[in-house]
Amino acid sequence: MKIDGKDYRTIWFEDGGKAIKIIDQNLLPYRFAVLRLGTLAEVAHAIKNMNLRGAPLIGAAAACGIALAMHEENDDATLASAASLLGTSRPTAVNLHWAVERMLRVLRPLPPARRTEVAMTEAAAICDEDVIINRAIGQQGLKLLQQLYADRQRPLNLLTHCNAGWLATVDWGTALAPVYAAFDAGIPLHVWVDETRPRNQGAALTAWELGKHGVPHTVITDNAGGHLMQHGKVDIVIVGADRVTSRGDVCNKIGTYLKALAANDNGIPFYAAVPSPTLDLQITDGLREIPIEVRSPKEVAFIQGQLPNGEIVHVNLLPEGSAAANPAFDVTPARLVTGIITEHGVIPPDRLRSLFP
Amino acid sequence: MKIDGKDYRTIWFEDGGKAIKIIDQNLLPYRFAVLRLGTLAEVAHAIKNMNLRGAPLIGAAAACGIALAMHEENDDATLASAASLLGTSRPTAVNLHWAVERMLRVLRPLPPARRTEVAMTEAAAICDEDVIINRAIGQQGLKLLQQLYADRQRPLNLLTHCNAGWLATVDWGTALAPVYAAFDAGIPLHVWVDETRPRNQGAALTAWELGKHGVPHTVITDNAGGHLMQHGKVDIVIVGADRVTSRGDVCNKIGTYLKALAANDNGIPFYAAVPSPTLDLQITDGLREIPIEVRSPKEVAFIQGQLPNGEIVHVNLLPEGSAAANPAFDVTPARLVTGIITEHGVIPPDRLRSLFP
Repeated sequence: MKIDGKDYRTIWFEDGGKAIKIIDQNLLPYRFAVLRLGTLAEVAHAIKNMNLRGAPLIGAAAACGIALAMHEENDDATLASAASLLGTSRPTAVNLHWAVERMLRVLRPLPPARRTEVAMTEAAAICDEDVIINRAIGQQGLKLLQQLYADRQRPLNLLTHCNAGWLATVDWGTALAPVYAAFDAGIPLHVWVDETRPRNQGAALTAWELGKHGVPHTVITDNAGGHLMQHGKVDIVIVGADRVTSRGDVCNKIGTYLKALAANDNGIPFYAAVPSPTLDLQITDGLREIPIEVRSPKEVAFIQGQLPNGEIVHVNLLPEGSAAANPAFDVTPARLVTGIITEHGVIPPDRLRSLFP
Repeated sequence: MKIDGKDYRTIWFEDGGKAIKIIDQNLLPYRFAVLRLGTLAEVAHAIKNMNLRGAPLIGAAAACGIALAMHEENDDATLASAASLLGTSRPTAVNLHWAVERMLRVLRPLPPARRTEVAMTEAAAICDEDVIINRAIGQQGLKLLQQLYADRQRPLNLLTHCNAGWLATVDWGTALAPVYAAFDAGIPLHVWVDETRPRNQGAALTAWELGKHGVPHTVITDNAGGHLMQHGKVDIVIVGADRVTSRGDVCNKIGTYLKALAANDNGIPFYAAVPSPTLDLQITDGLREIPIEVRSPKEVAFIQGQLPNGEIVHVNLLPEGSAAANPAFDVTPARLVTGIITEHGVIPPDRLRSLFP
């Protein structure tokens, strides 16, 4: 996507594969900065610290991290420890494991001397494929929005939660890929952006992305979506996912379940846009089988914002002595999901298993 | 309730009725400060600016505001303009209208010379009655919690949204009155406190109140409650209300509806604690008939917090150019409400009309 006219991806190799560069998402929406990561350890830290985030992007970053590790040392022990370090950096999104497994599958059989080059090629392929997949998700979702626009004959109101835009992927985004495709195709639309506490990826990232692309949008608190749905102000909900089970349970950023309930209560279609590496067909019951990351309570107790002088600060929101809890994801049961927008088409949740055997 | 051992109400007369004092809720949880309001205009501003808030408390404050106006001038024109100024200061909570109407009913027939004294007596009565009503709500809710504790035989987990504690009333609170009563009666319990964006009355006021009283509690984002309910971590939801219709639709702080949906989806009882002045039996359909206040988008775009040096600041959360919207209340349809905890008992929503004819 373009930032002020210049094409960007969220991650790319530099120096012939000795480093990667990423957009530092912790400084958005205030500052656009590119971060250079030269070692496996730096990549693992950036994933944990959420300098980059989003299920597809952390998968791509993990692949690149293994490639950087192979630049330093390409023996079996390094490969195994790199895979283990990255694989445990964040527990919920399945893309991380998928990417690490794919890298291992390709690299393990090779003689160590060949691994450095192949690792970089494979990581780059994972990044490129993510772009292709997301563009296809955009086209599949576009058909859905064209249909909805034909039905409604007025500007569409979408609601999305968290950031599943191009910043959450290598490019295009998942939930926002159909939005960009529809906007570029001239369908009039407006996006309600849940701010998405505690880290406010909606207010900080989704709003920033949409603004840069010129897409009309309004930021709301996470509390407001149900009310808007009750009053006919939402035509469709599209979210991303960190993991989707074989029966179509959708694990996504905490709070997604509440929006799915409200959509269901008001007869509003609720879609998750999901690239195939986000499908985890090994498991069925999302509520029981997906590990939910519990992050630091400090993310609830403090919030990042900007002072009038431009300084970026973290301010405390809690009384002295009050505890906070911070589960980072929840699971929306398949019964609340109208469909899964994949690169292969829009699929009712109960047909996932047969289409991705 | 006690603050550091000293008894407080949220509002009281001073100087023989020439002024009122309130706890300035905009500085909590960082600073405890008492604000003196000497004129009707100051009271109206404090209500609008939310130095005090909470449906029962703004009702009490409006009554006191009329009393202050009668101190300055006690003719018919002053009475009418005071009623009009206060009555339009905030649209959603019905208590404001109820209190203004009650003051008018008492004062209008009187010779102006008598109004100054009677206004103060009547306003003080409204404050005192609020305390009595809320204490009774606490006792009614206590029975509910005793029953639940007898069933569960383990510490109870309650969830509440926004602040319906003693800070939202003259004393005791509505939703939190049963919590204080149960805690004082030795029932082991823990409260999940929704932070309640945009103004964070949960994180700032409910957590502060509960902490001062020693009640175990944990602050969560507004996104987290559904997930906790899915995992059996919530036994009961109790919220306050700004207006309840004759069929039991509950209008309360934005986001309440989402928690009611999640409670319903997980078989968890959902109660609103409602003093009778919050009932609006003139209307039936809460979604169509209750005016929902839309507050400044700045409350979404900026948040108040404290810097490490103790300074209280407002920080910007949004990218340049992004709009925000801020509906302040939503309506939970009666079908999602298990019961209304009133001072007269716990009532299924569909029996409200017969019990309060």
